Amino acid sequence: MIRAGIIGATGYTGLELVRLLKNHPEAKITYLSSRTYAGKKLEEIFPSTLENSILSEFDPEKVSKNCDVLFTALPAGASYDLVRELKGVKIIDLGADFRFDDPGVYREWYGKELSGYENIKRVYGLPELHREEIKNAQVVGNPGCYPTSVILALAPALKHNLVDPETILVDAKSGVSGAGRKEKVDYLFSEVNESLRPYNVAKHRHVPEMEQELGKISGKKVNVVFTPHLVPMTRGILSTIYVKTDKSLEEIHEAYLEFYKNEPFVHVLPMGIYPSTKWCYGSNHVFIGMQMEERTNTLILMSAIDNLVKGASGQAVQNMNIMFGLDETKGLEFTPIYP
Amino acid sequence: MIRAGIIGATGYTGLELVRLLKNHPEAKITYLSSRTYAGKKLEEIFPSTLENSILSEFDPEKVSKNCDVLFTALPAGASYDLVRELKGVKIIDLGADFRFDDPGVYREWYGKELSGYENIKRVYGLPELHREEIKNAQVVGNPGCYPTSVILALAPALKHNLVDPETILVDAKSGVSGAGRKEKVDYLFSEVNESLRPYNVAKHRHVPEMEQELGKISGKKVNVVFTPHLVPMTRGILSTIYVKTDKSLEEIHEAYLEFYKNEPFVHVLPMGIYPSTKWCYGSNHVFIGMQMEERTNTLILMSAIDNLVKGASGQAVQNMNIMFGLDETKGLEFTPIYP
Amino acid sequence: MIRAGIIGATGYTGLELVRLLKNHPEAKITYLSSRTYAGKKLEEIFPSTLENSILSEFDPEKVSKNCDVLFTALPAGASYDLVRELKGVKIIDLGADFRFDDPGVYREWYGKELSGYENIKRVYGLPELHREEIKNAQVVGNPGCYPTSVILALAPALKHNLVDPETILVDAKSGVSGAGRKEKVDYLFSEVNESLRPYNVAKHRHVPEMEQELGKISGKKVNVVFTPHLVPMTRGILSTIYVKTDKSLEEIHEAYLEFYKNEPFVHVLPMGIYPSTKWCYGSNHVFIGMQMEERTNTLILMSAIDNLVKGASGQAVQNMNIMFGLDETKGLEFTPIYP
Amino acid sequence: MIRAGIIGATGYTGLELVRLLKNHPEAKITYLSSRTYAGKKLEEIFPSTLENSILSEFDPEKVSKNCDVLFTALPAGASYDLVRELKGVKIIDLGADFRFDDPGVYREWYGKELSGYENIKRVYGLPELHREEIKNAQVVGNPGCYPTSVILALAPALKHNLVDPETILVDAKSGVSGAGRKEKVDYLFSEVNESLRPYNVAKHRHVPEMEQELGKISGKKVNVVFTPHLVPMTRGILSTIYVKTDKSLEEIHEAYLEFYKNEPFVHVLPMGIYPSTKWCYGSNHVFIGMQMEERTNTLILMSAIDNLVKGASGQAVQNMNIMFGLDETKGLEFTPIYP
Repeated sequence: MIRAGIIGATGYTGLELVRLLKNHPEAKITYLSSRTYAGKKLEEIFPSTLENSILSEFDPEKVSKNCDVLFTALPAGASYDLVRELKGVKIIDLGADFRFDDPGVYREWYGKELSGYENIKRVYGLPELHREEIKNAQVVGNPGCYPTSVILALAPALKHNLVDPETILVDAKSGVSGAGRKEKVDYLFSEVNESLRPYNVAKHRHVPEMEQELGKISGKKVNVVFTPHLVPMTRGILSTIYVKTDKSLEEIHEAYLEFYKNEPFVHVLPMGIYPSTKWCYGSNHVFIGMQMEERTNTLILMSAIDNLVKGASGQAVQNMNIMFGLDETKGLEFTPIYP
Repeated sequence: MIRAGIIGATGYTGLELVRLLKNHPEAKITYLSSRTYAGKKLEEIFPSTLENSILSEFDPEKVSKNCDVLFTALPAGASYDLVRELKGVKIIDLGADFRFDDPGVYREWYGKELSGYENIKRVYGLPELHREEIKNAQVVGNPGCYPTSVILALAPALKHNLVDPETILVDAKSGVSGAGRKEKVDYLFSEVNESLRPYNVAKHRHVPEMEQELGKISGKKVNVVFTPHLVPMTRGILSTIYVKTDKSLEEIHEAYLEFYKNEPFVHVLPMGIYPSTKWCYGSNHVFIGMQMEERTNTLILMSAIDNLVKGASGQAVQNMNIMFGLDETKGLEFTPIYP
Repeated sequence: MIRAGIIGATGYTGLELVRLLKNHPEAKITYLSSRTYAGKKLEEIFPSTLENSILSEFDPEKVSKNCDVLFTALPAGASYDLVRELKGVKIIDLGADFRFDDPGVYREWYGKELSGYENIKRVYGLPELHREEIKNAQVVGNPGCYPTSVILALAPALKHNLVDPETILVDAKSGVSGAGRKEKVDYLFSEVNESLRPYNVAKHRHVPEMEQELGKISGKKVNVVFTPHLVPMTRGILSTIYVKTDKSLEEIHEAYLEFYKNEPFVHVLPMGIYPSTKWCYGSNHVFIGMQMEERTNTLILMSAIDNLVKGASGQAVQNMNIMFGLDETKGLEFTPIYP
Repeated sequence: MIRAGIIGATGYTGLELVRLLKNHPEAKITYLSSRTYAGKKLEEIFPSTLENSILSEFDPEKVSKNCDVLFTALPAGASYDLVRELKGVKIIDLGADFRFDDPGVYREWYGKELSGYENIKRVYGLPELHREEIKNAQVVGNPGCYPTSVILALAPALKHNLVDPETILVDAKSGVSGAGRKEKVDYLFSEVNESLRPYNVAKHRHVPEMEQELGKISGKKVNVVFTPHLVPMTRGILSTIYVKTDKSLEEIHEAYLEFYKNEPFVHVLPMGIYPSTKWCYGSNHVFIGMQMEERTNTLILMSAIDNLVKGASGQAVQNMNIMFGLDETKGLEFTPIYP
């Protein structure tokens, strides 16, 4: 039985970890912390968790003693120092602090110096690309929600040089839970309902993360033009991606089927079928579709995920499974909720 | 391994059965039928099911040979004749055909004669009330969604004579999936969104079902005034129930805690906490809250369920577990999706 | 041209007043105040208003000089002192401070002493009941959203002694804009979407307001059992009301048609048609339907309004029209938005 | 008083015309036809219209006698023959039958031969581009919803050669009312809610319409890569457009402000502000924002409209105003509904 702790258990990704770990046959929750609600039972605040563990203040000693793995679900910057103190506990950080190969990129986009970063045995936790390194990592930087949907949609094409990496254009749409459980007027129901809007146009913090990973796959510098949009739904990300190609749709489709043939969570759709975020709801599955605009040789890739599962907590559990030598799908086999 | 068949696999309750049975450790789907889509793989039509079984036309011989249990998820009236031909297969009918003790009531409300009804070893499949009979039943009439939420909310009060059974008033609100996957203008997104409306006021078909069961519990004739409403959400039923009482709220609350103390799916909330349909989303759990209007001695009971799970397919699986001697929560342990 | 000012212009009811007054042929906005955004143009913060007036801090002298009427859209308690200083300006208060005939009731429910209340020439601003007094009022206490929907639905029945006033039971459902533009987790999209829940059960502050007005109509003390619910939609209130009667549905329906035959905004639906909140969206119209539960002599009344229009700002403009001798429908003739 | 008729009055754009014309000070509805509901009063079927005119079968003589202008809101192909019979009535067609300069393009995309097309005095009814021709047109082909949002967003840039017309990429998102009031499973609430999906990728019928108009503005052949998406909301279109440029954002922004400075319905937002569909809700207004991705010289244009107003019926009324010499904003001055 893996003993798992969660710091930041009462945010949306923290609560999703609780849901997934309660359902996991080989893990149990042994530690939950929350600054806001320390001292209370989780189900007092969130009856739907049906979890009567008591929330604590963060205590590194208790974590070291009671946990084999610690999930940190905190705002960017908050995990780094906290995590460095811990010994003998594997870390899966759902924030951005351990995602970058180059701490200078983190400093530029997140405004914080990560001292001693080079000594940490970390990896970018996208299992479909870095499975082997995850097995032996001490710290996993769990990918962002948008990057997960974008990198998986582009990996086969870039790996096999099927598209031009200089012209990657990503128009992404996300449900509101991606903004977290924050008291902000912008995310009130009355503001979001019947509303669709772009935000952080061309300067979202997920850009450098995508460019790092896409650059590694293609072996070239990659520029991503990225426009995220807020959509009136709770869960789900759909990324629509435009790239130039000189290959045929058939050839590209074949390459995708081959690339993902053994992946349990990535589903390349038949030709002519395009994904819906609804097909992923509450699950760790990814659906990828594609179409060609023939006149302009533009390949249109579309990928759908649940932002809180494959885009956050589900992927974190998938990483835990890999780190502890379990079957990668353990505790994540359930299919999406529909309708 | 229980071999399970589903007839009407491509309606919303049929698809929910697929989702639940795929997740069940001691059952497997061995037969799926659909008139509309016979010959196709389920995942061709519903990619999110990730189920590549082929849909058949209904064939009683195949069912008898391949199934230990058959779930029938068909419109009212369609299951009865179909089910009577089958031998050696246990039946869980999600429609109304086997819910009534008196076939005359069915005839009155559903307009069909059920010939030979008295020879069928059937039971009303609400486990919290009829667990022992379900164990030995050949056919289970799985309760309607509204009745499930209402009967569970009233059972302890009626059982212990805590309220006046003559004045039961139920104001119920349901998500749209309760209307099924039907091509009807009334259920279009543009019609339902930003819309709340009552329907079938004081003459919904679920009234006689509630009155049958509530009458049996209280030992007296019960009249239910019932107003269902359509709410702009996909899943969930909230029933708000008004009854006269001469007992105190504390006494009633105690009786409820006691009544349901061993029930794995029914949660009586602490005083002052009222249920939300969101707390049940995608799960088999029921939440019950209560409040007293002191000046008029009116007890207000509130119960929330997911109409497709505890209100239909989850309860059906719970019944299957009981009929086959499994732990009642098997395959249904997962907690709700939030947010 | 009526010169109109709005205090609290950047809450939802304040913004709705801006929308309605901009569309009014005989009024113009001459003063807008907002503590939060003083000094800014309204359209900087709310582009959809297309209103470039500058928001000020509240200044009683400016109001007296520039306004014939002042709308106060502030939290309960904030208007009273502020409004008492003003001379020569008619006041329409969208809060609760001027709604009660007895300031003791206000003190009990809102916890504040209203000194000098008896000297104010005020009226409860429900035009369908108090049209004559509104004509000459100095201060109008604009009704609450729930009370508007409930009082209009019950007035004809109580006026003509068609129902038993001792047994009034109101199950009301509201869209989220009724909670205002407040930074509160409870009203986040991710919390409200796919969620239906009761709140303030049997102790909502709108109860005494309903009882005051219903009592006056019926000439007897009235007890209202009131359960409000939060529904995943932005606008709209539906109140479902249960009362005992010994009259026939036909007789009651006739009385309602007669009672409201000259009212421009109140529509009594034909028998068998029940209202939807969607039919009122963005408009000042009210739809009332009814049904009888024959076995228990329970009359079920259903009324739908837009909580921000007839339930707040539209009714306020209707009151302004009456106070200034205009046609009551002026600026409010537009029909609802559908779909 | 302009006498206006509507054919296809009970679809969503037909009903929106009813709403707008009832609110128009210089037009009145004199004829309403509907095949489905002929013989009934409009408000019997749609109580929210508060319109008791009786729906007729289409009768060209009655139209000629009773109408100065006829709005045809019919599926593509249905208007053409019907309209050609009429004499002395100006036509505003909300379908595609009169949008194309070249009937061959229509034949290719809509599969129908338009015989005698060259003899019709028609114009593409986008007032901001073709105001002068609309004044004298006999028949106006009212633009499609997507093309309206896209053409207005690109017109200034193409007119002034600020962007490269060969690389126009449009990622558009629409509310569900754009699909009309059709009994189709795809548009059921339970299917659309919590769902975001692309459709008709790179082959939507609105492509040739955009290319026709954008080509005329730029004087060059234009290729539009177009991906429409269905969003869980009722109204609203947001188009996000990507084009290459060698100009600065400041220069482009200036050109847009200048181009639209006298347009009553088109609002170029300040730098750094991006539009939301909510800002247009129920109104004829258009909001346009922009941003530059500096590294790749990609201009990102974003435009928001209400698909049923500026994208259909509001624009039709605007065209009527122009054809009859009225102030273009007559009957359309109202601001959007918020929230």
